[in-house]
Amino acid sequence: MNITEQERDAVYKTIFSRRDVRGQFLPEPISQQVIMRILKAAHHAPSVGFMQPWDFILVQNAETKQAIKNGFEQAHQASAEMFTQDKSEQYRQLKLEGILEAPLGICITCDRSRNGPVVIGRTIKPEMDLYSAVCAVQNLWLAARAENLGVGWVSIIEDEVLRSALGIPQDIDIIAYLCIGSVSHFKDKPELETAGWLPRRALEEAIHHDAWQPHQVNNSSER
Amino acid sequence: MNITEQERDAVYKTIFSRRDVRGQFLPEPISQQVIMRILKAAHHAPSVGFMQPWDFILVQNAETKQAIKNGFEQAHQASAEMFTQDKSEQYRQLKLEGILEAPLGICITCDRSRNGPVVIGRTIKPEMDLYSAVCAVQNLWLAARAENLGVGWVSIIEDEVLRSALGIPQDIDIIAYLCIGSVSHFKDKPELETAGWLPRRALEEAIHHDAWQPHQVNNSSER
Repeated sequence: MNITEQERDAVYKTIFSRRDVRGQFLPEPISQQVIMRILKAAHHAPSVGFMQPWDFILVQNAETKQAIKNGFEQAHQASAEMFTQDKSEQYRQLKLEGILEAPLGICITCDRSRNGPVVIGRTIKPEMDLYSAVCAVQNLWLAARAENLGVGWVSIIEDEVLRSALGIPQDIDIIAYLCIGSVSHFKDKPELETAGWLPRRALEEAIHHDAWQPHQVNNSSER
Repeated sequence: MNITEQERDAVYKTIFSRRDVRGQFLPEPISQQVIMRILKAAHHAPSVGFMQPWDFILVQNAETKQAIKNGFEQAHQASAEMFTQDKSEQYRQLKLEGILEAPLGICITCDRSRNGPVVIGRTIKPEMDLYSAVCAVQNLWLAARAENLGVGWVSIIEDEVLRSALGIPQDIDIIAYLCIGSVSHFKDKPELETAGWLPRRALEEAIHHDAWQPHQVNNSSER
């Protein structure tokens, strides 16, 4: 199956305009059809040994969202104290989640015991199943962007809070909690870039030929 | 920036026709322009705290590829012995990599110490930087598919083999080794699905509403 140049450019447009959305969510609900399309995209991610270890917990209940929001607030407070004082002040001013504002939350999990203990491609690198579930997150994120929906990944929350709020069994790993919804607009650049937290690294610095180039290690100024 | 329905459908076409390619690589080189486009797509993946922890080692040297291929063979042999006897025989017949055939290899790494010890969004969930690098893998994979290039993820290889072959420092994590190139064709379905190794799970079984549904745990027959 051939992808045309026009189709290719649509993929790049989607990749480059994808954002981690925190503050631009609109309350309008997402149609069931659209939800199923983005979940189908996630479900067609690559998975090690075709184990498809992911599950998707859709969160729409207001009380459940509030429990998750409370967990974020607690973790956020604890996190702020880890930064140096000047960074901590800037950190506290950043809007880092849209748990209550986004109409839909999706928790993506990984069942590491699915299909038995020996999985093709995981025999040597055991984390491959977790990475498969992350690929599902990224497929979902790009599909949502292609539907003009914003997605924000909330990682400032203890797994145990999500486990308790969503009744996730102890043997199921939690990969991501995503906030999803229509947005007023997509920002031109990542918010942390605009805020001057960190610059975008030059792509050329990230590229090595046939072997790791030691000089590029030194480009990272804070090492 | 709005994505049109036509553009959205191009994204879905790319997602659904993406394959893990092992046996269909053609030797023709990939142009420098195309390589830079897919790397730029990878570089625009989401990253926790905008830390952009990834690097890309492009592998085109024949001796380096051979060292990696040897590492695969060793790990593959060890892996075959982990399966039950009937599965082991089927496993040995599967083509699982195209290290020598693909014109380009790309090793994606994660520098967990980039930009200092405290990273926004990694304070509570330390694996977020690894997951960011996996998102870069998936962006690269979809961009390559949009360029009509095949990608295969080789995970049956010890990290230490790649570290030695590519001179990767001990403090840099290895996320993925990808084989990339033009292909004779893309298969209609994942090869492990066609081979009857595992079926595609019904999407509906993976969806839960507001809480994990215990009955869905039981759908996984081997638990």
